[in-house]
Amino acid sequence: MKFIKTPVKGMNDMLPSDMRMREHVLSMIKKSYALYGFMQIETPCMEHIENLTSKQGGDNEKLIFKVMKRGADLARAIEKGDGEYADNGLRYDLTVPLARYYANNKEKLPTPFKALQIGSVWRADNPQKGRFRQFTQCDIDILGDDSNLAEIELVAATSEMLTQIFAEVGISNFTVHINDRRILKAAAMAAGFAEDDIPSVLISLDKFDKIGLDGIREDLVGNGFDAEIVDRYLASYGAISGAVDCAEFCKSISEEYLDPAVVTGIGDIISGARSMVSEGVEISFDPTLVRGMGYYTGPIFEVSIDGYNFSIAGGGRYDKMIGRFSGQDVSASGFSIGFERIITILKDKMEKGIQISENNRAILIDKNVALEKKLEIFKEAKQLRSEGVTVTIQPMRKNIKQQIEKLEAEGYTNFQKVYND
Amino acid sequence: MKFIKTPVKGMNDMLPSDMRMREHVLSMIKKSYALYGFMQIETPCMEHIENLTSKQGGDNEKLIFKVMKRGADLARAIEKGDGEYADNGLRYDLTVPLARYYANNKEKLPTPFKALQIGSVWRADNPQKGRFRQFTQCDIDILGDDSNLAEIELVAATSEMLTQIFAEVGISNFTVHINDRRILKAAAMAAGFAEDDIPSVLISLDKFDKIGLDGIREDLVGNGFDAEIVDRYLASYGAISGAVDCAEFCKSISEEYLDPAVVTGIGDIISGARSMVSEGVEISFDPTLVRGMGYYTGPIFEVSIDGYNFSIAGGGRYDKMIGRFSGQDVSASGFSIGFERIITILKDKMEKGIQISENNRAILIDKNVALEKKLEIFKEAKQLRSEGVTVTIQPMRKNIKQQIEKLEAEGYTNFQKVYND
Repeated sequence: MKFIKTPVKGMNDMLPSDMRMREHVLSMIKKSYALYGFMQIETPCMEHIENLTSKQGGDNEKLIFKVMKRGADLARAIEKGDGEYADNGLRYDLTVPLARYYANNKEKLPTPFKALQIGSVWRADNPQKGRFRQFTQCDIDILGDDSNLAEIELVAATSEMLTQIFAEVGISNFTVHINDRRILKAAAMAAGFAEDDIPSVLISLDKFDKIGLDGIREDLVGNGFDAEIVDRYLASYGAISGAVDCAEFCKSISEEYLDPAVVTGIGDIISGARSMVSEGVEISFDPTLVRGMGYYTGPIFEVSIDGYNFSIAGGGRYDKMIGRFSGQDVSASGFSIGFERIITILKDKMEKGIQISENNRAILIDKNVALEKKLEIFKEAKQLRSEGVTVTIQPMRKNIKQQIEKLEAEGYTNFQKVYND
Repeated sequence: MKFIKTPVKGMNDMLPSDMRMREHVLSMIKKSYALYGFMQIETPCMEHIENLTSKQGGDNEKLIFKVMKRGADLARAIEKGDGEYADNGLRYDLTVPLARYYANNKEKLPTPFKALQIGSVWRADNPQKGRFRQFTQCDIDILGDDSNLAEIELVAATSEMLTQIFAEVGISNFTVHINDRRILKAAAMAAGFAEDDIPSVLISLDKFDKIGLDGIREDLVGNGFDAEIVDRYLASYGAISGAVDCAEFCKSISEEYLDPAVVTGIGDIISGARSMVSEGVEISFDPTLVRGMGYYTGPIFEVSIDGYNFSIAGGGRYDKMIGRFSGQDVSASGFSIGFERIITILKDKMEKGIQISENNRAILIDKNVALEKKLEIFKEAKQLRSEGVTVTIQPMRKNIKQQIEKLEAEGYTNFQKVYND
């Protein structure tokens, strides 16, 4: 019999120490978002293949783990030979399932609906450091609220959640970058780019952190855009240094391209969220923030921490997407938390990780101990456990030194060895 | 575009009220088992198809959701036309993954290793009431302990966990039935059955609760077994009424078939576990307990509650199974908790389910309210949340009556309506 000990490529076995860290962070996330009225929901890990391949998922659709048809359905598909062997697939994100879920359950849910989803997603990506084929996503979304209150709640709740998690490792400063897709578009059009060219222009702008303004200029001109338009476009970005005021940045963009309410809205989101976050959290307008996905329609946001070159959360408003799925327009705004990235940072900063409870006892019983004596030990253990002490009762091993060392590695500090009298 | 609103057949969308119940039970399970030194671990949901189809999983292997090969691997498989289109599958239980996990990570784990696994499993079963194609399993296992301490800890921990969960709905009585595969085998052999016939004999005995002794007699004789042997076999079971003493039941079985240590062992497990459980928990020898799976090698156990015709937890010792997988014998004993069944009972008994926290406030803001006033409201909300009050801030809807009703259904009791002054 062929038996393979290792997990499937790109997927991980979680050791007890991994799980203690993950459970610790998950419970903080759940507790924190519950205080803001987000309600946890869950969808099946498998979705209809039709929903997963509807072109809303971008490149992720190329990475789907497809689930095979079964029985007669499979036999028919093979006979037909059309390659349609799958009827389901594993979800590659939590957004497509959310759109389906909302379409299916809307009548039973409050409006607006504040959802918290935590779950595994699967992508047949090329595994590399910190990128897995199964990983945990954690999303909050507000559906059915077309006002800025949604963004204020999303940003405030996420900032507070991160504040609490990172306080444990001495990180109290991070930045929430805020921009708006409509400002990105207006700035490009005001400079003279054609509307159809905007996605391509934004791909270049998105590299700002890596290549700077000069790099972007080269990129755009290299892509065949008119140098004069490029220069006009980048001039507004040239003034960026430190915090930028949204109204200041937008003042040269004519109302033909940008509704002034968008600019006021960003101001309101920033001051609203600032009024609710802890000290150390910076919330600021960032005109170079792009966010890759094409489905965003309004405000967008991203969280960064000094010293780490990846964002730890990102999101924005996507008012059209759920409608494209379900045929019924629903305003929506969401924040996706980089759960695995948070775990990476905590592991990095916490030398000993999360240990079992400080109140603990490992009772190691020699094999010659009589039942009567064991029963006494059991009663003591019962009492200790009722007082909240973690107690493990185990047979004493020949190599007791190694047994104790391994238990110490998991956090046990109190050992009771029981021999026959 | 084809869009399917319903979840994949046999799988469920979890509403906020469902999730509150599930999260509540999960947190009690985790907390309770942690006190007994069980350590949570996790494996990927996907396993190598070779491991899943190794004949250890019984009928479940027919129910595997297979995951298709991708790219060049898939193209090769299709060209070959041998039907080998899958390289992975979704796990149908948590035991096969545990065997692989332990083989893969043994060096990093304490011995004995007390594992808690909670996770989804998938079976392409025919969906029916209370049977789903994706459901949560919750298993505790002790690996590397060949003594009865393992069973005592498993039974005591599970009893205590169930006591705590069921106390909330006024159920304080349940029974842990205990038997031993070796006693089942010895009783059959002592009556004169051939060793090869034992699995078939046990299939009949397993129907005791449904068809009684007369039904079993009919079943066995109908299957062609000698009536005299059948009568001799059932005579020992005929005396059963109420609690049966293990030593009493086994006294007529000769040592040729049954090692007396097995009988003493069952006595020790029962008295050991009894010394640690709460009042109301009955732990008793049940000679008719069979447990379906063929891999059990020693003590077996099952939990039942009056008024429900299904068991809510079951398990036993399976000393050979991990070895058959990994080639290295590891003693193992485990308890599988019927998580979905516990949820069914709690839903049945708790009229209102689990609500959001009693300290709550829903702040509904009219769209004409000015930013200044909103900022005041936000500061108040920040203060309330820091005190542990669940606060949701939302735009006031036109149909405010419906908005409040839906929020009340989730447990909100305090409403603050904010209008412009």
